Amino acid sequence: MTYDRSRRLVAEGLGTAMLVATVVGSGIMADRLSDDTAVSLLGNTIPTGAMLVVLITLLGPISGAHFNPVVSLVFALRRQLTVADAGAYIAMQVLGGVAGTLIAHAMFDLPLFQVATTVRTGLGQWLAEAIATFGLLLTILLGLKMRGEAIPWLVGLYITAAYWFTASTSFANPAVAIARALSDTFAGIRPIDVPGFIVAESAGALLAMVLAGWLLAESSSAQPSEHPP
Amino acid sequence: MTYDRSRRLVAEGLGTAMLVATVVGSGIMADRLSDDTAVSLLGNTIPTGAMLVVLITLLGPISGAHFNPVVSLVFALRRQLTVADAGAYIAMQVLGGVAGTLIAHAMFDLPLFQVATTVRTGLGQWLAEAIATFGLLLTILLGLKMRGEAIPWLVGLYITAAYWFTASTSFANPAVAIARALSDTFAGIRPIDVPGFIVAESAGALLAMVLAGWLLAESSSAQPSEHPP
Amino acid sequence: MTYDRSRRLVAEGLGTAMLVATVVGSGIMADRLSDDTAVSLLGNTIPTGAMLVVLITLLGPISGAHFNPVVSLVFALRRQLTVADAGAYIAMQVLGGVAGTLIAHAMFDLPLFQVATTVRTGLGQWLAEAIATFGLLLTILLGLKMRGEAIPWLVGLYITAAYWFTASTSFANPAVAIARALSDTFAGIRPIDVPGFIVAESAGALLAMVLAGWLLAESSSAQPSEHPP
Amino acid sequence: MTYDRSRRLVAEGLGTAMLVATVVGSGIMADRLSDDTAVSLLGNTIPTGAMLVVLITLLGPISGAHFNPVVSLVFALRRQLTVADAGAYIAMQVLGGVAGTLIAHAMFDLPLFQVATTVRTGLGQWLAEAIATFGLLLTILLGLKMRGEAIPWLVGLYITAAYWFTASTSFANPAVAIARALSDTFAGIRPIDVPGFIVAESAGALLAMVLAGWLLAESSSAQPSEHPP
Repeated sequence: MTYDRSRRLVAEGLGTAMLVATVVGSGIMADRLSDDTAVSLLGNTIPTGAMLVVLITLLGPISGAHFNPVVSLVFALRRQLTVADAGAYIAMQVLGGVAGTLIAHAMFDLPLFQVATTVRTGLGQWLAEAIATFGLLLTILLGLKMRGEAIPWLVGLYITAAYWFTASTSFANPAVAIARALSDTFAGIRPIDVPGFIVAESAGALLAMVLAGWLLAESSSAQPSEHPP
Repeated sequence: MTYDRSRRLVAEGLGTAMLVATVVGSGIMADRLSDDTAVSLLGNTIPTGAMLVVLITLLGPISGAHFNPVVSLVFALRRQLTVADAGAYIAMQVLGGVAGTLIAHAMFDLPLFQVATTVRTGLGQWLAEAIATFGLLLTILLGLKMRGEAIPWLVGLYITAAYWFTASTSFANPAVAIARALSDTFAGIRPIDVPGFIVAESAGALLAMVLAGWLLAESSSAQPSEHPP
Repeated sequence: MTYDRSRRLVAEGLGTAMLVATVVGSGIMADRLSDDTAVSLLGNTIPTGAMLVVLITLLGPISGAHFNPVVSLVFALRRQLTVADAGAYIAMQVLGGVAGTLIAHAMFDLPLFQVATTVRTGLGQWLAEAIATFGLLLTILLGLKMRGEAIPWLVGLYITAAYWFTASTSFANPAVAIARALSDTFAGIRPIDVPGFIVAESAGALLAMVLAGWLLAESSSAQPSEHPP
Repeated sequence: MTYDRSRRLVAEGLGTAMLVATVVGSGIMADRLSDDTAVSLLGNTIPTGAMLVVLITLLGPISGAHFNPVVSLVFALRRQLTVADAGAYIAMQVLGGVAGTLIAHAMFDLPLFQVATTVRTGLGQWLAEAIATFGLLLTILLGLKMRGEAIPWLVGLYITAAYWFTASTSFANPAVAIARALSDTFAGIRPIDVPGFIVAESAGALLAMVLAGWLLAESSSAQPSEHPP
């Protein structure tokens, strides 16, 4: 079954809104309830990973469930998405993300409009974002080839891991980064730090596209693998 | 295989009882063992999500595993459940839920009959319940269409996320709300606050029904999706 | 493929040993590392649930992966296991369980032979064990019918929930209870309290057998279910 | 589809690098954020288990996703991998592992080159490593036979459990042990303690190979199993 453009765009906006509401909302909840930052990060990680599995399963068949401008960018570069669609997707992702932040603030009785003050900059953070997004795109591109029906799980689990192993807690998503710049809470990021994150994320995504392309290219098979799994 | 009415009603009552016993019981356990409320909420979240996967897998083939009046209401509105059955389901869900609370109290050597005193009211809480239930019904309605066999996992994961990203910790279920009004423990809710929750939950459920109906309606397919996953 | 008796018995012993080593070992680790008992219980729960999924997947095809005398008892009562096999299974489960305790002690540089001093008795505890085992057998008996290939997951998730919602942290297994009586650590139980647990577990298992039998019996189908999932 | 040698070796190096970056990076993150060591270990465990599921799913079809010298050794002994390939795999695993440590240090703004000082030695630790690796190889060898497509999950869940039930937190991998010797952080191990770990891991792996071989050998089937699950 195929879905028309309006449904696909609504799916991208809705999914990104739910994703950001989860990231920002669970961050607020976890931060309020604990004095231990690692416990708060667990309370932020587990809901995010779980929600990704749900959203990608539900909305993947409609729009592809990108929820992420660099994912749409890579699919456009691979000619699997028109440039016009990619542009519309990205617009909906940013709008949806911002809506998600506002919804989280409204639920927690916080001012709707905020500007984040959490500093997230420097070489370590940028490297972390590049690696986080590199891993995310590798997960998507290899996952689609190796076990397409498991993509919701693979992305949810990858982000669960990336919250912890990258120094930046893995934003890995320009739309989410923009949306989080509008929340001065646990998940926030200073607006001035967002461009650096977006550049790093794009670099990581492109690197993954190149590597996945090479790994999956028709190989000469001169020396076949003898151990299947 | 089909199941007769008595088995279906027992399944609804049993499932809701096990669900509420898990929510209330794990709340008591977690609250007793920790001074960190976020740790307690983790100890409440993980069992609830896990139990939902189990109960929906076991009892879904018998009764549909609604365990939730607004789910039965939506299926009745969609003409997938008769009004008489919906009424009987809801009665069993409420009875089962109350039984679950009593069982939890008995296991933990607490007075069987209690009245909760935890205040859960206000615009933020109602918005949270509306969103929580909106997301739950969207998960069920889209999930049944996109990947029916994964419904137990999708609901378990969605509720795992919703405990944290909604300000109300996601009751999302009138029968569970009523049952929790009878427990003055971690999971409790003041009886006077229950009606507000039920109204909000119903509103969220109906909104999800409308949106899911539109998303899944036969689309014109003028512009087919080129990116399958 | 079928497996001969010696392999089946080794599978039961090995699986129960690994299970008990996980329960006792992770309890020691978690208790040493944290002052927050709920955190310790999380560090005990997550490994146990994870290990159950693994062990039942690996050894289920060989022996059925009972690892639990009341499971073997119920299968014998249902005529799916001979009385001689059930006896041999139970012997191997107890031996394997005790070996698991010794292995955990050896790894953590503790005295191999210990006697537990943790009091676990009283009506609440017995009710908890009966309910825990009732739920476990219901999971197995309905799960085998509804979605047999998911049994490892269902049991792992059920026990994950049961650690928290039952007041006894859900032993639900006489062989494990005996093995834990030999460890004066986080997972211990006073030997004098073991018989009460075993009686309660057996009662819960038999109740589940009766209820599952009724739920799954050929139903009159006079009123078929209209809502499949 | 088969993959040529260069792709298989890159897959082994890339996978081991991502795995070690996850183990070391999440250890640094978790240790920084919490004063409760059990919380830190949860923040180390969950990402590692999640990442293993992802990496084995993505790279298993290319190289077999060993990421572990004792796994390659066992496959060579079983004649499922040539000696030359096993050697090349092991070299890439060690190189990849060291790269993973360096990447983690760079992300967290730590000195790239470090020498660990955490003491991990003694009979209990060696027994723990032998058992951890015994269980890992048993999981792989039985899992491939019983449910090959579930191997990523089985390994991820096994390691999740093994972090807690073994006294050593389950390195179970010589390449990872070497890489962790170069990080004086949460996951570190004194270089002088690495050989003892490698010997113990090899012993556990070989024991599992023998036991799995016997369990899966053609059995006489004189007494067929009557209870399938």
